[in-house]
Amino acid sequence: MTPNRTTRILILGGGFGGVYTALTLEKLLKRELRRGEIEIGLVSRDNYLTFQPMLPEVVSGSIGILDTIAPIRRLCPRTNLYTRVIEAIDLDRRRVTLAAGVGSRQLELECDHLVIALGNATSFAGQAGLVEHALPFKYLGDALALRNHAIHALEEADIEREPTCRTGLLTFVVAGGGFSGVEAVAELNDFVRSAARSFRNIGPEEIRVVLLHAGGLILPELPKSLAEFAQKLLMKRGVEVRLNTRLAGATAEAALLSAGERIETRTLVSTVPSGPNPVVALLACPKDKGRIVTNCHLEVPGYSRVWAVGDCALIMDARTGDPSPPTAQHAIREGRCAAENVAASLRGTAKRAFAFTALGKMGSLGHRSAVAEVFGLKLSGFLAWWLWRTVYLMKLPGLDRKIRVAVDWTLDLLLPSDIVQLKTDRAVSIRREHFEAGQTIFQEGDHGDWLYLIETGEVEVSKRVPGQGEVALRRLGPGDCFGEIALLGNHVRTASTRSLTSAHVLAIDREACDALLSTLPPLRDFFGRLLEERMGMRPESNSVAGVSNGV
Amino acid sequence: MTPNRTTRILILGGGFGGVYTALTLEKLLKRELRRGEIEIGLVSRDNYLTFQPMLPEVVSGSIGILDTIAPIRRLCPRTNLYTRVIEAIDLDRRRVTLAAGVGSRQLELECDHLVIALGNATSFAGQAGLVEHALPFKYLGDALALRNHAIHALEEADIEREPTCRTGLLTFVVAGGGFSGVEAVAELNDFVRSAARSFRNIGPEEIRVVLLHAGGLILPELPKSLAEFAQKLLMKRGVEVRLNTRLAGATAEAALLSAGERIETRTLVSTVPSGPNPVVALLACPKDKGRIVTNCHLEVPGYSRVWAVGDCALIMDARTGDPSPPTAQHAIREGRCAAENVAASLRGTAKRAFAFTALGKMGSLGHRSAVAEVFGLKLSGFLAWWLWRTVYLMKLPGLDRKIRVAVDWTLDLLLPSDIVQLKTDRAVSIRREHFEAGQTIFQEGDHGDWLYLIETGEVEVSKRVPGQGEVALRRLGPGDCFGEIALLGNHVRTASTRSLTSAHVLAIDREACDALLSTLPPLRDFFGRLLEERMGMRPESNSVAGVSNGV
Repeated sequence: MTPNRTTRILILGGGFGGVYTALTLEKLLKRELRRGEIEIGLVSRDNYLTFQPMLPEVVSGSIGILDTIAPIRRLCPRTNLYTRVIEAIDLDRRRVTLAAGVGSRQLELECDHLVIALGNATSFAGQAGLVEHALPFKYLGDALALRNHAIHALEEADIEREPTCRTGLLTFVVAGGGFSGVEAVAELNDFVRSAARSFRNIGPEEIRVVLLHAGGLILPELPKSLAEFAQKLLMKRGVEVRLNTRLAGATAEAALLSAGERIETRTLVSTVPSGPNPVVALLACPKDKGRIVTNCHLEVPGYSRVWAVGDCALIMDARTGDPSPPTAQHAIREGRCAAENVAASLRGTAKRAFAFTALGKMGSLGHRSAVAEVFGLKLSGFLAWWLWRTVYLMKLPGLDRKIRVAVDWTLDLLLPSDIVQLKTDRAVSIRREHFEAGQTIFQEGDHGDWLYLIETGEVEVSKRVPGQGEVALRRLGPGDCFGEIALLGNHVRTASTRSLTSAHVLAIDREACDALLSTLPPLRDFFGRLLEERMGMRPESNSVAGVSNGV
Repeated sequence: MTPNRTTRILILGGGFGGVYTALTLEKLLKRELRRGEIEIGLVSRDNYLTFQPMLPEVVSGSIGILDTIAPIRRLCPRTNLYTRVIEAIDLDRRRVTLAAGVGSRQLELECDHLVIALGNATSFAGQAGLVEHALPFKYLGDALALRNHAIHALEEADIEREPTCRTGLLTFVVAGGGFSGVEAVAELNDFVRSAARSFRNIGPEEIRVVLLHAGGLILPELPKSLAEFAQKLLMKRGVEVRLNTRLAGATAEAALLSAGERIETRTLVSTVPSGPNPVVALLACPKDKGRIVTNCHLEVPGYSRVWAVGDCALIMDARTGDPSPPTAQHAIREGRCAAENVAASLRGTAKRAFAFTALGKMGSLGHRSAVAEVFGLKLSGFLAWWLWRTVYLMKLPGLDRKIRVAVDWTLDLLLPSDIVQLKTDRAVSIRREHFEAGQTIFQEGDHGDWLYLIETGEVEVSKRVPGQGEVALRRLGPGDCFGEIALLGNHVRTASTRSLTSAHVLAIDREACDALLSTLPPLRDFFGRLLEERMGMRPESNSVAGVSNGV
């Protein structure tokens, strides 16, 4: 180590891998940190570590919202935390660019040792409509959003009388039968069924909760007997388990299945797709299925003093030769190993090869039941659930969290579950939507609050004509817009629209539209002309005289 | 009462007034409800009742987020809840239009008795920049937003080195020295000072918390001795109390005071302005300063079977002849009185006139101190705080809430306060901003993520030229846009911009901009031409040859 310059260690990622690297470094290098010979930095999108196994319980509210997460500053008090988004990584120069914060200046960080622990990211690419209409389930914000969404669906169902719309509102679909999908569907099922009791106009038999799984048995990570136990239990509690079924796409109103079937639903959760973190995807280093290849010491071959741990890295177990699975238990051990090896390379001592055998696997099934395989022992039911809680309580970092969660759980045994809906997010003014072929976008007489612009696909405009039924007025394609008459003029749709093909559409709400039109003269002119044209024009069908084809 | 038709009672508003009207009606009309002779409906924006006195504690996290609110469905199990926004009220026909929910159909409700309990709304109208840059403090979402905002400011300050920017990030301003302003500033002060200890690069002396108050002494609602006690205590704890000072406006970086002074701050909370609810403002009935005039039975004169309670109504006390103040204690009693009178008019019995003398007034000062005036007794310090907690705990509706809050408070005495920042809201893609004259909007070399459109005001574009310093290139006015070169081309600003006058500007982020340009051909053409023109044009000053005036 150079005595006259501070050695900088920079860790990217605030998940289990990154935080445990920092924690371990703080312990191993206590003396050097005190003398100022070493600086540890950690970059994280959020200023807390999310304890993912407990996320499903946020949905049902059995754990306080803040209790599943631990502030990184408290866990790693000697580490400089940068709560920013990473824009680029230069592996050769070990230089990292962080996105601008409150101001508009980016931040550049350079270091002597770079540890990459960026995990993976939710990616819905390739399945039409999932980006727009499926709910991810990875971060705390996702769990909160799902909770609010489910409550909103119940609120609407309580006052909705139209049968198809009611069915969609009261159907909840979770895609993915792995650990996270099963835990999510178990909690969601418990939650909506217990919350529905507070809604006067919703019958328990109206609620439908569906789990989609691509394989023939859920929980492929577990031994068959445990997976069968879990599957039976979910079914007994009212979850409809659809095996050998994949999610192919989604619209705002339905989940589209691979076999061509559709399930009417307003709540679709996808726990399946996780692609590489976009920043990791840009790196030029050798990768395997998007994961950074490492050597047995967790170094990235071909670069100097660059390390990788956690879900973003391909790490071969030195004992078994198998790749380490993407679990928190492994990320924690990988973080510790990387920290030890960084310290060893600073001190010139020997590095160690990574090896770790999982202690066990556990999945909560909600309602005081779980499945677990620990040290080769198979457990299910209440005992497994008790073990699940105890182990996770012990693993939860920080004594204050442990106390809070223990209290939450105790209260939860006694008190009814919460049904308040937290609306913290402001209205989104511009959003993308996906429609499958033949789907109604809006109907004549509807209230019109959105202007639509077609990105891809075709849309048909039609109108009811007395004595002739529904008459097609015109076809619109990419670059065309519709819905402007109701938005710019009165509030009611003067025609109906439906997609002729699969269509991607940009929807702009009234406020955003007003703001744009009032400031952008070319846009105002464009819509002025369009409105004139459409309001004054005759429909294509000659027989229907005097009907405007605007919408 | 007609025996062969259901009598419908509709309550508008889910605050204390509305919820207590429903609660009392459920009790008084138990028999009629069971027989189906009567239906009670309640319309509320949120599906919960917010317990406002405890909102400040959400900021510091000493109460669980969900524990300051109570689900209306649980409080009023026999009432039909409509969780929708109200669009219009027809008083003559007692007909209410609700905004569309998940679908696009509005809902029309008609009733035999209409109770209006819509409270008031935050209104920043008339003060430039407040809508864009001040944080309101009325709903639970506001408290959460303030909490996140304060933590974000600390996060940014921890890594920011530029002194002015640091000052702004570490200065927290609350406008309004009434109960809600004082309680908010007390909790905010406690919270940022205790949270800052977890930030390695923030010194306690750098934090500044300011309370602006228009009068000569805070808490005008209380006797002078108590107000003085509170004021001294706040000052002792480090709050800078600025008396006889009004907030005149705001920008993203500063609070503008009435005397022309400015305080650099990134966190400005305004608790002052509350205007009438927009739906109430549209009503044609007689009003006094925006409040609906009522008779002594809480009926709205001139209309049949229309009632009004709470902050939206002007209610004269039958005993004192004074108008009832807008407090929760009064709203609760007014709700009960209206319910009794509705029941009396259904049964043909005598109605009672409203009269209620407040039991007392209390304000929490955080940190185990408060001020209170109860039954003429003046209390301050710990005793008042203990009383404050006890009284509010008793008032909190629902036993489960009482238990949860009691547990929260107990844990809070033992455990450190939380510093996690919950980012639940998605990025806003279009936002309005306000700049005062002479303010820099962005600087050459900055990272550019926004496109700007001028609504009102003038903006100057300038560029650094070697040997000549900063050279003005062009002036822009309403309808002009700027920032497009950095946004559409590379990422760095090629010139600087500043406002010449007070300016209102619409800012569009990269994603929204891309979406709009890819779907709106006239917009794409417009920007294409603009870009060509600005990139190729010569600046207005002849001496600066070869410099593009684009930004």
